[in-house]
Amino acid sequence: MTQLEYAKKRIVTDDMAFVARREGVSPVTLRRDVRRGRTVILKRAGSPRAPVGVGRGLSVKINANLGTSPLRADQNLELEKLAAAVKYGADAVMDLSTGGDIAGMRRKVLVASAVPVGTVPVYEAVTRRREATAVTADDILDSIRTHIEDGVDFVTMHCGVRRAHIPLLESRIMGVVSRGGSFLVKWMLAHGRENPLYERFDEVLELARARDVVLSLGDGLRPGCLHDATDRAQLAELKTLGELARRARAAGVQVMIEGPGHVPLHQVEENIRLEKKLCRGAPFYVLGPLVTDVSPGYDHIAGAIGGALAARAGADFLCYLTPKEHLGLPNLEDVVEGVIASKIAAHAADLARGQPGRGRTDDEMAEARSRLDWEKMLSLALNPDKARAMRGESLPEDEDICSMCGEFCSAKANRDICEKVKMSAVRRRVGA
Amino acid sequence: MTQLEYAKKRIVTDDMAFVARREGVSPVTLRRDVRRGRTVILKRAGSPRAPVGVGRGLSVKINANLGTSPLRADQNLELEKLAAAVKYGADAVMDLSTGGDIAGMRRKVLVASAVPVGTVPVYEAVTRRREATAVTADDILDSIRTHIEDGVDFVTMHCGVRRAHIPLLESRIMGVVSRGGSFLVKWMLAHGRENPLYERFDEVLELARARDVVLSLGDGLRPGCLHDATDRAQLAELKTLGELARRARAAGVQVMIEGPGHVPLHQVEENIRLEKKLCRGAPFYVLGPLVTDVSPGYDHIAGAIGGALAARAGADFLCYLTPKEHLGLPNLEDVVEGVIASKIAAHAADLARGQPGRGRTDDEMAEARSRLDWEKMLSLALNPDKARAMRGESLPEDEDICSMCGEFCSAKANRDICEKVKMSAVRRRVGA
Repeated sequence: MTQLEYAKKRIVTDDMAFVARREGVSPVTLRRDVRRGRTVILKRAGSPRAPVGVGRGLSVKINANLGTSPLRADQNLELEKLAAAVKYGADAVMDLSTGGDIAGMRRKVLVASAVPVGTVPVYEAVTRRREATAVTADDILDSIRTHIEDGVDFVTMHCGVRRAHIPLLESRIMGVVSRGGSFLVKWMLAHGRENPLYERFDEVLELARARDVVLSLGDGLRPGCLHDATDRAQLAELKTLGELARRARAAGVQVMIEGPGHVPLHQVEENIRLEKKLCRGAPFYVLGPLVTDVSPGYDHIAGAIGGALAARAGADFLCYLTPKEHLGLPNLEDVVEGVIASKIAAHAADLARGQPGRGRTDDEMAEARSRLDWEKMLSLALNPDKARAMRGESLPEDEDICSMCGEFCSAKANRDICEKVKMSAVRRRVGA
Repeated sequence: MTQLEYAKKRIVTDDMAFVARREGVSPVTLRRDVRRGRTVILKRAGSPRAPVGVGRGLSVKINANLGTSPLRADQNLELEKLAAAVKYGADAVMDLSTGGDIAGMRRKVLVASAVPVGTVPVYEAVTRRREATAVTADDILDSIRTHIEDGVDFVTMHCGVRRAHIPLLESRIMGVVSRGGSFLVKWMLAHGRENPLYERFDEVLELARARDVVLSLGDGLRPGCLHDATDRAQLAELKTLGELARRARAAGVQVMIEGPGHVPLHQVEENIRLEKKLCRGAPFYVLGPLVTDVSPGYDHIAGAIGGALAARAGADFLCYLTPKEHLGLPNLEDVVEGVIASKIAAHAADLARGQPGRGRTDDEMAEARSRLDWEKMLSLALNPDKARAMRGESLPEDEDICSMCGEFCSAKANRDICEKVKMSAVRRRVGA
């Protein structure tokens, strides 16, 4: 039985209890949200990894993508990226390998990862046949089955891209930018047939249900630039995803919805509202979104802006972007930068959403700063290693000043002020 | 006469005409906003630098801080930072030097800068006397006079920190974090007297009016952590700043208001609304704001999130943060990273606010991406050097793929799709 099926029977599973405890929410509330499809629990049945809850009332989660490409297929490097991503706070990872021994890479990631693992099975089907149009519907379903048998916790499937949506692309600058989406559109155009993942959706559901793998409905027509955002093609697909989400829930399959992409700042909240409405509150997994197209080298920052705003408005899961987005495959440092940027966005949104206990570290940091306790400040940083290195560029840690102001330090002046303000005599003296 | 005085006489100055042309707004609208104090023009009378408009209906501006500290007083390095900041898009700079030959540094910056220059004169007064409490009111006014005579375009003065506000600090974790603010509070506590900049505000105004220097009313009690944000101390000072802004306008002095600081995501818009209300639409110059306290090493990202949201809500001017904030004096690379992060925030807000012509580069980037025109993509990047280096890590520029996907490239697949979608036969074929 899936978590959703247990929830429908009003049973709180051990995994639900674990997630509720970790998140500081009541198990009954969590069970209700799982039942209604507003929360999913990422954990394949029997997986040794701890479950991660994504959805309503829970802290915002972040995902780090990794994996080989045809031009860079260094499995050890990808495993190092995995370790770094988890170290700096990724709640889940996706192995998007398209180069070298794809199956071998996936199995290594599944052994090494402490957090839930997702994949996009259609990539492997396409790379095997080399030519997108040569892939059969059976190839794709076989690929899904293999990934699920290997033990992945969630799979992205672009089931909602339909033939009828293709003409809606005409007014776009960028057309289709999703890899999976572009493959399926090409396939539909070549064969003059409907998307096989849409046609055979019941089989997809049966595969996911058997092992309680969360279905992440990919947005194959997501906008690839601000110009294309929130257009008819995107919304037509989103509407289809809403219908498929309903069918998934009815079949006992946990489902979340993937989202843009590139969205201007003033459309971010509206995108969340539309997803929540059309997909009846299904968890929303957004890629960034990027709030400008002109930031290659800094897309993790453009994505953190969009992600923070999206998460505050109700997005549940942020896919990171690295500084290398739009430029090449990220290296180890890029992965760390991407994870931290997403973490800042998720944390800022958690604070805004009032997630239990989330402000504690910020207050501890503030206290350490007011005491000029450098060791504490550095240890509380999201990336203590980097903060320490930056601080170390200027001064040894035991100095209680920094190179910004030296002795001309407001924290030092403030210590005197604090002492005095706490004395009630001072209050009289200043005439208040 | 100041720009404000001209505007009151319904005269469009050459500087107003220049700003209006550059911003794509009507000169009469601009003049009205200058007259009502909703827009300021940063340009000291007689300055050789081009004027920069900050305020209502104009694009969001960004400022880069630079300057020596007692522990790092390398003037050439600071001049390199100036050049880098302007190269990457800073609309103004502030020289916050507190170490070495402060006056000499300022004069070099004033000669070298192509953009308006601001300073905080009280720093120099304090560093001269060494002990904050030894400074006299005349020292401060002398310092303001010298900076204005030297040719600065705007000065930050913490005129709104009052004795009566001091007891409101009691509930804070961080107390006072503004350097100027902490000096003035210390001074008031030591002398048992009112803030001299408040008492002698008319003299400050006369100095600013004489050369049309924009008065930037500093927020000496700005919150230094999320816990202290939007508290009674901050709002009491903001109310005073509103009164002082009114007096400044009546005296013909252009004025803007400085703001936080550290603000949780859900309080950002409210902070903008309060400033615009209490200060009757005066331009708002915010520092970040940072949306978390735990991001040392990445404060430029936390600041870009807050800055984008603030600017979308009506903030006019963003002071950058570098990755080195809270850790030490920024180096050259930190300055570039800080400028770009702020630029992304300002640009994203410009797009959301519908600033004329602001989406053009994003659309050009999207077109270049759809054509896989790497040379064009790299040249349109906010930091072409960095984008080129990152791209170059993986492949020569003449390759039309990148190391992310290699031949498994959605843009390539998309080229086929685009060709077909434009043929009306395809539309029939897909049955739509």
